[in-house]
Amino acid sequence: MIVLSDPSAFRNECEQARRSQKRVGLVPTMGALHEGHATLIRRAREAADFVAVTIFVNPTQFGPNEDFSRYPRTLDADVEKCTQAGASLVFAPETSAMYPPGDETRVVPGATAGPFCGEFRPGHFQGVATVVSKLFALTGACTAAFGKKDYQQLRVIQRLVTDLFFPVVVLPVPTVRESDGLAMSSRNRYLSETDRRNALAIPRGLSAAHRAFAAGERRASVLTSLVRNPISAVANSIDYVDIADADTLAIARDDAPVSDRSVIAVAARFSGARLIDNVVLGEDPAPIG
Amino acid sequence: MIVLSDPSAFRNECEQARRSQKRVGLVPTMGALHEGHATLIRRAREAADFVAVTIFVNPTQFGPNEDFSRYPRTLDADVEKCTQAGASLVFAPETSAMYPPGDETRVVPGATAGPFCGEFRPGHFQGVATVVSKLFALTGACTAAFGKKDYQQLRVIQRLVTDLFFPVVVLPVPTVRESDGLAMSSRNRYLSETDRRNALAIPRGLSAAHRAFAAGERRASVLTSLVRNPISAVANSIDYVDIADADTLAIARDDAPVSDRSVIAVAARFSGARLIDNVVLGEDPAPIG
Repeated sequence: MIVLSDPSAFRNECEQARRSQKRVGLVPTMGALHEGHATLIRRAREAADFVAVTIFVNPTQFGPNEDFSRYPRTLDADVEKCTQAGASLVFAPETSAMYPPGDETRVVPGATAGPFCGEFRPGHFQGVATVVSKLFALTGACTAAFGKKDYQQLRVIQRLVTDLFFPVVVLPVPTVRESDGLAMSSRNRYLSETDRRNALAIPRGLSAAHRAFAAGERRASVLTSLVRNPISAVANSIDYVDIADADTLAIARDDAPVSDRSVIAVAARFSGARLIDNVVLGEDPAPIG
Repeated sequence: MIVLSDPSAFRNECEQARRSQKRVGLVPTMGALHEGHATLIRRAREAADFVAVTIFVNPTQFGPNEDFSRYPRTLDADVEKCTQAGASLVFAPETSAMYPPGDETRVVPGATAGPFCGEFRPGHFQGVATVVSKLFALTGACTAAFGKKDYQQLRVIQRLVTDLFFPVVVLPVPTVRESDGLAMSSRNRYLSETDRRNALAIPRGLSAAHRAFAAGERRASVLTSLVRNPISAVANSIDYVDIADADTLAIARDDAPVSDRSVIAVAARFSGARLIDNVVLGEDPAPIG
């Protein structure tokens, strides 16, 4: 496995691969890789001959009171997982390589970044859009895999690619879940045993809404209550439970009609971690079968 | 001459050129081409085998009370000038192709865009950075020529390329002037005969400062007065006359020492037009010999 930290060397490897007629795949991550990431890599590998995984805990997407400093860093284990999953290269730069002195340009998303996490994590999606733009410009033409677990991030990046004309095909990959339904996340390791058990309220709530929708319920307020109720019984707090248009992320207010192009998304805080999850109603299976 | 309006077709031509081992050159313009643009094209042609000129009056870089709607549009004459100067292709998209419905992502420059025109044209450099990012992503690896006449724009774009890792070499091209010293600009055609004569105060003022610097003057206030005085006698108003670090564009306040890496920049309004000009003291010749 090639592990690079220098941006120019990374760019050269991607160019070299393309010159050798290889289709390039990209899987941007913050490391602490789990089976969800392995799935991203395998899916990218189906669409590409040469798959680069980037591992970079991006400071600009963390707020001042968020978990940047304690975010898990497990490079050796990550490289091993990348190898197992079929990656060709790991790019793991230092912060100073991605944001050298004088760096000041930012990529700022629009309305797509407004609701949901955009409201609770100011600047988060600007940080995401900026670092992903840097990675896209370094990688060049590629297929880039992003998980639907971070649904709003996926939409922000799809818009970014369209709006800035990056030569990138975005490949959305369905959320990978533990056997009990909890969405896999690097932040799950923050959970205590009790929190881990309580966090199941999230996939349970989403599944209840999914069932109600399948049975014909179309009122946003009813569907969100089905998600909110079990979670509010066990979580420290809920940032949001909302339904939005799956493309624009415009929130369905009150009893605006919900369609199979609607996404229900939730962010809830447990003592150790802020967890997010979502279901696109006409697209994704229920988290708990 | 190939004239294209479709972004994908433009991207394909650039890729095709690179596949044929041609070095790609890019000259982004808003049209209304003059000898300054022709020089950009010729300089790009020295560094590249295939030179694309883009002609796009970019709405996002104009303020609500600026001259977007009356900005001169002279496509046929522009294409002829591109041919004469050795361009290989003209890309002249519609607004709806560069900003289709739903477009919302913006590229936002930092401190470099703060002083000078940044203060008087809010949003201007965000518009510039956004459209130039789109053009860079469409063109791919290239050498891109930008005139030093728009010095702050040049610096914003150099930062943009560095910060976002675009595979672009920025080629700065010295300002081209009329025989009497006035910097060439598409906006010069707005000037009445009297304004045109009065506008000469700009290159005269800059030349006076240039001579004083060469003679040893290093006080910012003295040098800016030499520029300001002749202009204030004839202009409707002056937006700014300031001296800044030529790299960071940090303004030299009061009598901060001026060096040969300082730039004196001016923006002044005549009845018909807002004109800008500048001199990098240790780098550029005086506007009037």
